[in-house]
Amino acid sequence: MNDNSGISHLAALSLRVRHAILACSTRAGSGHPTSSLSAVELMTALMFGGFFNYDPLRPDYAGNDRLIFSKGHASPLFYSLWHMAGQIDEAELMTFREFGSRLEGHPTPALPFTEAATGSLGQGLSIGLGMALNARRLDKLPCRSFVLLGDSEMAEGSVWEAMEIAAHYKLDNLVGILDVNRLGQRGETLHGHDIAAWARKAEAFGWRAIPVEDGHDLRQVLAAYEQALNLGVSGAASGKPVMIVARTIKGKGVAAIEDKPDWHGKPLPTEAYKMALELLGEADPHVRGELAPPPQIQIARSEPTPVPDIAYAPDKPVATRKAYGKALARLAPAFPDMVALDGEVSNSTYAELFAKAHPQRFFEMYVAEQNMVGAAVGLAGRGKIPFVSSFAAFLTRAADQIRMARYSEANLKLCGSHAGISIGQDGASQMGLEDLALFRAVLDCVVLYPADAVSCERLVEAMARHEGMAYLRTTRMATPILYGPDENFPLGGCKILRRSDRDVCTIVAAGITLHEALAAADLLAAESIPVRVIDLYSIKPVDAATLQVAARETGALVTVEDHYPEGGLGEAVLAALADAPVPVRLLAVRKLPRSGRPAELLDYAQISRKHIASNVKDMLS
Amino acid sequence: MNDNSGISHLAALSLRVRHAILACSTRAGSGHPTSSLSAVELMTALMFGGFFNYDPLRPDYAGNDRLIFSKGHASPLFYSLWHMAGQIDEAELMTFREFGSRLEGHPTPALPFTEAATGSLGQGLSIGLGMALNARRLDKLPCRSFVLLGDSEMAEGSVWEAMEIAAHYKLDNLVGILDVNRLGQRGETLHGHDIAAWARKAEAFGWRAIPVEDGHDLRQVLAAYEQALNLGVSGAASGKPVMIVARTIKGKGVAAIEDKPDWHGKPLPTEAYKMALELLGEADPHVRGELAPPPQIQIARSEPTPVPDIAYAPDKPVATRKAYGKALARLAPAFPDMVALDGEVSNSTYAELFAKAHPQRFFEMYVAEQNMVGAAVGLAGRGKIPFVSSFAAFLTRAADQIRMARYSEANLKLCGSHAGISIGQDGASQMGLEDLALFRAVLDCVVLYPADAVSCERLVEAMARHEGMAYLRTTRMATPILYGPDENFPLGGCKILRRSDRDVCTIVAAGITLHEALAAADLLAAESIPVRVIDLYSIKPVDAATLQVAARETGALVTVEDHYPEGGLGEAVLAALADAPVPVRLLAVRKLPRSGRPAELLDYAQISRKHIASNVKDMLS
Repeated sequence: MNDNSGISHLAALSLRVRHAILACSTRAGSGHPTSSLSAVELMTALMFGGFFNYDPLRPDYAGNDRLIFSKGHASPLFYSLWHMAGQIDEAELMTFREFGSRLEGHPTPALPFTEAATGSLGQGLSIGLGMALNARRLDKLPCRSFVLLGDSEMAEGSVWEAMEIAAHYKLDNLVGILDVNRLGQRGETLHGHDIAAWARKAEAFGWRAIPVEDGHDLRQVLAAYEQALNLGVSGAASGKPVMIVARTIKGKGVAAIEDKPDWHGKPLPTEAYKMALELLGEADPHVRGELAPPPQIQIARSEPTPVPDIAYAPDKPVATRKAYGKALARLAPAFPDMVALDGEVSNSTYAELFAKAHPQRFFEMYVAEQNMVGAAVGLAGRGKIPFVSSFAAFLTRAADQIRMARYSEANLKLCGSHAGISIGQDGASQMGLEDLALFRAVLDCVVLYPADAVSCERLVEAMARHEGMAYLRTTRMATPILYGPDENFPLGGCKILRRSDRDVCTIVAAGITLHEALAAADLLAAESIPVRVIDLYSIKPVDAATLQVAARETGALVTVEDHYPEGGLGEAVLAALADAPVPVRLLAVRKLPRSGRPAELLDYAQISRKHIASNVKDMLS
Repeated sequence: MNDNSGISHLAALSLRVRHAILACSTRAGSGHPTSSLSAVELMTALMFGGFFNYDPLRPDYAGNDRLIFSKGHASPLFYSLWHMAGQIDEAELMTFREFGSRLEGHPTPALPFTEAATGSLGQGLSIGLGMALNARRLDKLPCRSFVLLGDSEMAEGSVWEAMEIAAHYKLDNLVGILDVNRLGQRGETLHGHDIAAWARKAEAFGWRAIPVEDGHDLRQVLAAYEQALNLGVSGAASGKPVMIVARTIKGKGVAAIEDKPDWHGKPLPTEAYKMALELLGEADPHVRGELAPPPQIQIARSEPTPVPDIAYAPDKPVATRKAYGKALARLAPAFPDMVALDGEVSNSTYAELFAKAHPQRFFEMYVAEQNMVGAAVGLAGRGKIPFVSSFAAFLTRAADQIRMARYSEANLKLCGSHAGISIGQDGASQMGLEDLALFRAVLDCVVLYPADAVSCERLVEAMARHEGMAYLRTTRMATPILYGPDENFPLGGCKILRRSDRDVCTIVAAGITLHEALAAADLLAAESIPVRVIDLYSIKPVDAATLQVAARETGALVTVEDHYPEGGLGEAVLAALADAPVPVRLLAVRKLPRSGRPAELLDYAQISRKHIASNVKDMLS
């Protein structure tokens, strides 16, 4: 391709791509043409220069290479490239950013060529890493992940998490293309046009950096890809991911706005657009881009085995975090696509039980939660069922990646351990007290909070079967077994553990506080105050019907959670009863958490059995 | 100090520190002695080798250097050092991790020598950066920030955000001390004992790296500090922050557990503790650590001026995001401690209005939200009132730093712009739809959501006056002016905008949806259905009294928010009414957000005027 005819073909394609970028963004009246124009040659050469192996009729084909626009705002370029590939016709291209169009402001899975939703900067490299990890370690594929990065987003720490973990896993099938167009949204980036600065950083992080002095010179760009791709397969220099670092011009091709600040995220007005077209010159409407066909591949898959039974001695307390690890290890043969990732705390989350049983399906992601979640999104994109674990408190580190995972429609499972003030001496920094709020506020995300090992095991299985995002909250300390081995725990269900026709109140709890609630019910029973107790193990979806019956029959509720009051179990119950409400007392952590023994802290936070009992009595009086 | 008597004094101190670490952690039965032991010489030499200028009787004195334990789990070391400095007596040291003790599991401001709460890894360098920025750029102090880092936490991207921004601001008064003890919680870190790998990364990020081959050799350690501190002030090599990269042994001094995995976060059992004491040898109980006295300093402070009036044409819509920027610029002379930070979107959040008016008090923090929030915590720790802005969606990137800021008792103000589906064409990735849940779940954090420019200006002022964390949510599009220039907006208040004695329902809204609510009230009025309309500009604290009166008087509520239903305005209202509830209908974004025009999207999400009106009617029927 690096001959004259190849170059002139790519040049003609690049010109058409520029036309398309300007046309769709001017038509939309918004979007990021200048950020698109800087990467035209970089992406045209990649896709149509013979480097990118992809069957556009089978976007999900496992043998395809993967392309992720981490700088998702360059969506006009992304769509224009697929237009050139014959997959988006001109009429559709002109629907860019319209309501109902597959061509959203930033790429989403509405378009099947989008590997993952982007638009929050600095996330794409982790997703590409996850896909490269899948190709190299799991499905054993010759495929590559290509990730287009902007220089602004290199300020995001998540990028450097991905840089170090990709090097650690020797992912030479991961290729970053850094579009150094110098300008961010409001001015110059950290290193301006100094591509050597970015190359130095990449190399210090264990990558092979390939500088491109002029990212608009197709010869240089093609040479860089040839260098990058040979490196990946030949002997001497392999084992390192590759970063192509290209100096480019923002707005390239439209002289009036080239390399100018104040043109970020602004389409050309119609008049300027017409002038730009004239200066660009006419594009050959017959030129077409062709993608290289992907290789025939074969993936060795093990057949799923039946799910083994679970067995817990009914009188021996077990921590739900341990049950999580046991469940993963037990379920792995039944779910061949299940993998696990952990943020250097697998001996606390008990993901290590899976790691020991199935080491080839476990990935140590070190203390880098953002990249861990991003990589899991990449793995999910390739059909795996990733279970991601850390302390619940530290999953907040990846809140933005979790938010975006939903828009990628990722089949992602997360487990947060060490929830609540009841973890004890380690203190506030280690206590997950806002995780229910975080995960409840993710559209459709299932939120689970088991109180014993049996329900935890069942819920892990339900998570694996469920298509979509799900979060499991686990507890540090051992808790008594409440359920027999054959009990079912459907998503969206709950369990009524105490019930009589004379119940004067319902206590709703989950996890650690359920045991306090049961003890409170005993205290109240001793005073002849019968109460209902509900195990709300499924916080979202919530069993509104059962809660409504309890509300109607008992007339009052007390909710108890080891979480801040906002966005947690109590508010989930209130929302479920909003149509036909009864008085509800929300017990939750309302004081500054601190170090102490678990029982001391439950008491301090006023969510212990005695506080539950006294609140029930107070409500009745 | 680098003579023989100095060395032997520091060696004797180090031995006492080791004794104290083992004693307090064994006594507590939990904690991280091995992670403490590796940094004993590094920290003893710093604090008592003449490098750390600090008056322990005036922890808040502006002329003090600052020391942050980013590896907060080394709290036994932290407390033992202050024990050696005569600030914690032996009896108190033995309360480590007990309920009520100032010596929590991880350092918190309960102890006045703690600059910021740590324990979630990778956050300390940003805090030190904020304090160094204050010393260099604002208060013009000769003080340094020292930050002790663990090698595990170097995997956190937030550390690399701080690395690049510290270099950008040429903070040679920032000194990192990297304790490369090779072992993380569950095994070897990314680079093991390869201190050259860490040094390479630091240098590529623009830092001066000083390797220390043996971090337990006091001569080497002292030499490193001398080199680090001279560099900071002399000509040639200054302008770069410094990272001391020291190879150390986890558990150093207790042979049985030195450099051993499986000893993370575990105290010595009593028997092993006694054996360890014997092997360590007796410590001289009379040896004392002395801190170097800080310099006399003078801070030039401008006197606050009176707050100028605000003026908006009543008939000209203005975006609340713009009012935010205008308020900052207007209020700056009245609040000399106010500073602003923005994540490379100041032309969208309108923080640029402050930046232009008061450039010396504005800090461009680039697309690195975690470090931005961490640096703001550092600035707040030094008495500044930092206002931090980005898109609401992208503040989620710093959720863990926001969570921890509360435990640092930071006087931190945050503004999230571009809230809600109503931003339009940019699509889901740019839409803040979970920010209310995030900030409501921060203990005591004020959460504000103005609907017009006047209330926004007033609320920014209220935030500046309020001691503690506060969040402001702003809207992309211009909205009509609702209030006169003299209207008051107390925190915890609300405004009743429509009211009659015959109201049959109350619509509660804020921000963009308040305007839809008012339009819905007009539609309903035309059908002779009188409704009350409340502007719930203060979502937390919430005006429960007014909501309860409205509930009692109108018997039903409809809440409307441009946010997911979980953890937002609607649930805040439900919680306020939990004692004496009435039926409430929660309108919120319950569908997958997408690109489109703002009005189309409000309609699609069923939070527009017509949906509000029809829901009111549906509730009444």
